[in-house]
Amino acid sequence: MTDRPATPLLDRVHTPADLKHLSDGDLRRLAQELRAETISAVSVTGGHLGAGLGVVELTVALHAVFDAPRDKIIWDVSHQCYPHKILTGRRDRIRTLRQEGGLSGFTKRSESPYDPFGAAHSSTSISAALGFAAARDLGGDPGDAIAVIGDGALSAGMAYEAMNNAGHLKKRLIVILNDNEMSIAPPVGAMSAYLTRLYAGAPFQELKAAAKGAISLLPTPFQDGAKRARDLFKQMTVGGTLFEELGFSYIGPVDGHDLDQLLPLLRTVKARAHGPVLIHAITKKGKGYAPAEEARDGGHATAKFDVLTGEQKKAPSNAPSYTRVFAQSLVQEAAHDPRIVAITAAMPDGTGLNLFAERFPARCFDVGIAEQHAVTFSAGLAAGGMKPFCALYSTFLQRGYDQVVHDVAIQRLPVRFAIDRAGLVGADGATHAGSFDVAFLANLPGFTVMAAADEAELVHMVATAAAHDEGPIAFRFPRGEGVGVDLPERGRPLEIGKGRIIAEGGRVALLSFGTRLAEVSRAAEALTARGIATTVADARFAKPLDRDLILNLARNHEALITVEEGAIGGFGSHVAHLLAEAGVFDTGLKYRSMVLPDIFIDQASMERMYAVAAMNAADIEAKVLATLNIGQIAERRA
Amino acid sequence: MTDRPATPLLDRVHTPADLKHLSDGDLRRLAQELRAETISAVSVTGGHLGAGLGVVELTVALHAVFDAPRDKIIWDVSHQCYPHKILTGRRDRIRTLRQEGGLSGFTKRSESPYDPFGAAHSSTSISAALGFAAARDLGGDPGDAIAVIGDGALSAGMAYEAMNNAGHLKKRLIVILNDNEMSIAPPVGAMSAYLTRLYAGAPFQELKAAAKGAISLLPTPFQDGAKRARDLFKQMTVGGTLFEELGFSYIGPVDGHDLDQLLPLLRTVKARAHGPVLIHAITKKGKGYAPAEEARDGGHATAKFDVLTGEQKKAPSNAPSYTRVFAQSLVQEAAHDPRIVAITAAMPDGTGLNLFAERFPARCFDVGIAEQHAVTFSAGLAAGGMKPFCALYSTFLQRGYDQVVHDVAIQRLPVRFAIDRAGLVGADGATHAGSFDVAFLANLPGFTVMAAADEAELVHMVATAAAHDEGPIAFRFPRGEGVGVDLPERGRPLEIGKGRIIAEGGRVALLSFGTRLAEVSRAAEALTARGIATTVADARFAKPLDRDLILNLARNHEALITVEEGAIGGFGSHVAHLLAEAGVFDTGLKYRSMVLPDIFIDQASMERMYAVAAMNAADIEAKVLATLNIGQIAERRA
Repeated sequence: MTDRPATPLLDRVHTPADLKHLSDGDLRRLAQELRAETISAVSVTGGHLGAGLGVVELTVALHAVFDAPRDKIIWDVSHQCYPHKILTGRRDRIRTLRQEGGLSGFTKRSESPYDPFGAAHSSTSISAALGFAAARDLGGDPGDAIAVIGDGALSAGMAYEAMNNAGHLKKRLIVILNDNEMSIAPPVGAMSAYLTRLYAGAPFQELKAAAKGAISLLPTPFQDGAKRARDLFKQMTVGGTLFEELGFSYIGPVDGHDLDQLLPLLRTVKARAHGPVLIHAITKKGKGYAPAEEARDGGHATAKFDVLTGEQKKAPSNAPSYTRVFAQSLVQEAAHDPRIVAITAAMPDGTGLNLFAERFPARCFDVGIAEQHAVTFSAGLAAGGMKPFCALYSTFLQRGYDQVVHDVAIQRLPVRFAIDRAGLVGADGATHAGSFDVAFLANLPGFTVMAAADEAELVHMVATAAAHDEGPIAFRFPRGEGVGVDLPERGRPLEIGKGRIIAEGGRVALLSFGTRLAEVSRAAEALTARGIATTVADARFAKPLDRDLILNLARNHEALITVEEGAIGGFGSHVAHLLAEAGVFDTGLKYRSMVLPDIFIDQASMERMYAVAAMNAADIEAKVLATLNIGQIAERRA
Repeated sequence: MTDRPATPLLDRVHTPADLKHLSDGDLRRLAQELRAETISAVSVTGGHLGAGLGVVELTVALHAVFDAPRDKIIWDVSHQCYPHKILTGRRDRIRTLRQEGGLSGFTKRSESPYDPFGAAHSSTSISAALGFAAARDLGGDPGDAIAVIGDGALSAGMAYEAMNNAGHLKKRLIVILNDNEMSIAPPVGAMSAYLTRLYAGAPFQELKAAAKGAISLLPTPFQDGAKRARDLFKQMTVGGTLFEELGFSYIGPVDGHDLDQLLPLLRTVKARAHGPVLIHAITKKGKGYAPAEEARDGGHATAKFDVLTGEQKKAPSNAPSYTRVFAQSLVQEAAHDPRIVAITAAMPDGTGLNLFAERFPARCFDVGIAEQHAVTFSAGLAAGGMKPFCALYSTFLQRGYDQVVHDVAIQRLPVRFAIDRAGLVGADGATHAGSFDVAFLANLPGFTVMAAADEAELVHMVATAAAHDEGPIAFRFPRGEGVGVDLPERGRPLEIGKGRIIAEGGRVALLSFGTRLAEVSRAAEALTARGIATTVADARFAKPLDRDLILNLARNHEALITVEEGAIGGFGSHVAHLLAEAGVFDTGLKYRSMVLPDIFIDQASMERMYAVAAMNAADIEAKVLATLNIGQIAERRA
């Protein structure tokens, strides 16, 4: 406890209502304590640091001026919500952030009434806030709807769709643009350049006469704030911006770390806003903590660290990460083939494509947080003769699903999808799980769908995708480190639709798709030790299936069990369909399919999450025993 | 042939190259002939009329100035492509539009090299064109990339994502904004209002000095055009628009029906463009054909019609359409429950919500072509205490898939998804087929997924969705007319997860999900007539499954066959998983699952498309016989 900061004011804050009695001066001091507490907490838990530090003053100002939970404060992406959690009754658990059984690293409706809308994917907040505003105006929940959205999130079309609709509906709605010139990666896109021009270019305009007069109409309690707001407004651009063209009242730019600006401005907006308002606040990611401010990514995500030095405490890794193996393999293929290009949606570091961009800057495209565009842009590149590798997390590929169907699959364009973070992902929890990609890709005609069983397989699958020009192809791989196998010098294209036998058994066949193979193999060893001869196969392909392999396994074993890191509807469903159509079930086969269970699994370590999913080696072993009706005996032995 | 228009100039055009030799005066006459031919063709085939008529001059101008297929002309949505097809070697088949074996109603890569990128869903063209431009600059296919996109399509975030990226990449790219103030429905959204202001509001600016001087640098052949372009530019806004903020050179507005404006402008742009250019053309949907011009929707889609009168030749319908039954049921429920609201993404007529909007204007939201926003906006409405019915076509729900997962399912918000056009859809072909929704929804934890077997069931499912407040719920129904059953006075909520037995048999069980029930019942009658006692059940729910019903069917029948209007991974896969986990396959069951085949099916009548899919009554009967190993005997009898 000695490293906890002194926080006398914060110690008296249990709910946001406690802020109402504080003077503006106390609120400034509270912000400092809140910043110190945030740094202290994340040093213990790891997590998203820079984003939260950038909104400390905004968080204090919003809770001081508005009345949550009656007023709905919606944090876009919400990795910046730690200060908000501290102020809203969750300080006692803040050092459990992102841990199993602890607080989520994101806002979460089931966690607190102060989280009216959960988020973890970007750019949803304006849509959600507009929904609250429309519900309110129809007699639903009362209160203001406030979306806090970063400049990076504005590159997503969804945010534009919401603004376009909000400008049309003209409902009272408050959007705070938290502009730190920094999403996870350096900002890209014309909008980002535009925002910079807004506060770097033209001289500030005078406040419009109408706005000036309006302030004098404010009730007495707001007089002081209004006076300051008026002085402030004099230095701001009012009108004429792109946001005004879309129907918003634009106010800004304002210093997002200066409570002397934020408080009067928010009080005025609260008292007077009608229709949609956009407040443009300039902030600094990592603000107030030197190691974060100085980091290239503003201290975006961090391991546990030493508060004094900022040094992160990372366990040494035993094997390269799948992400890195993917990126290095792609660089290697690209060195041999000038047609290979790479596309990322604002995740060059997360997808490893920063390595690709260093080597081939002209052949790497960061399109912004824009998965819909990323997929169809890739389709255009393929139609223009290139070999595009579209690298996305499984969970974010969901954003481009229609484009995968309509622009890629129907046209049979050879876009390569490198799907990172497949399966359960650990501390980011349910919102980031890559559970559904196999199901939603493998039923698309003409698609080839692979999953790497280990990092060497991933190298071969990159080569396979590079060589496959007949239609779309996807390969998935998980978060984290490989299993430590030797890596081939260079990948070789795999035969499409062919799996492989890993171990020959006789009684039971375990058919794995993806990196559960290690657990499957452990289970097989345990079963063999029990005298149950177990065959292990790696399917490699969910589509096209290896018919011969699968029908042979069915023919020659008492039981056949598929294992995959995905939800129902994917690999196992395709295998079951094949077995049914081939008449295998007519005469009986002990067939089971191990898939992710029908629940959203909360954050924990990946291993613990797979334990909840009942998909670790012991679970696979138990499944075999139960299938063979020797489950109870086994249980008694264990 | 007597009703064919006289088209002496058009008769000499076989490829776009033939336009290069025509004078500007001849091109004007050609446009008139092209318009007449388009009207004549669509009067025979039915189809999208108004959009094509609105771009006749644009089509002529683009093909006269640019060099397709080297230059890539990409028509957004592409229901306006009929004139383009006539000019690009497909005139001889233009009266087969949207017919089985005929031309697609959309652009299609496999149909012609003049269709570099197929489309049918909105707002993909800028992404695709940018892909072509980027490929070209990396040594891929040469030529210009030109996207022609309507103002309605600009409400989609995807178009914004693409512009944001294009403005950043600064590659030469030509976007033609075809602004007819009209998507399928009246325009909504702030962008639409902004576009109107662009040409209705401020006085036109002088051409910038730089642009003036530039024209004199043009080579001689362009002199005449350049002179006219200069005169034209004097009347246009240059600079200062929202598009310029996003990094585009903005030119416009220009009269999109005046070749004297279009030709010199396009010639100048072709000669001089560097970086992304947006040409803002004002057009009129249905231009030049009075019945279309006067129609509320600009003659958007039409049945076959009489050219002289515009009167459409529609077959009288025997039963109300599913769309209408849905809308009327929703209006009825909403009359009893003020919390019910409805959301459409620019399809008030297509989804039937125009009826809802007439009755409850404040409770109906048309958000524009913006499915991502539509879904999360609905989630916000639900979180704010309303009962949102989000009405989308199955194929367009794909656009909002991540939002369904992340904003609705994970938060268990009771958004009601009314999924129209489920299954195969007829003349719109593969791009509009609703094949994947059951697979991509039924594997989401906490989701309830229903399919209506007939229009009376649909009434009950609307009531079920209205009553279900525990989490998200979806119900799907097909395009077209119901089967003619009596409609209940008012829907009653169905018991969640309970199916129903339609006919008791004994040897074979057919388990239907959705409107294949009529075909299933016909097959069952035929089978019973053959002495094969056939049970028919309607599952109603793909999730949760009716465990008892299904396990009983499995227990008491030699064979169990599921039938659904969807791809693999959906209902049948969930049934197979249940049967496997329950150990049913251990001892043998003749189980089969009839799903849409692993191909994209081209346009034809719905019945013919289901014949291709082998899912009509005769196919179901044959499947049963084959499963019982009496297929060959049956074939000999037939």
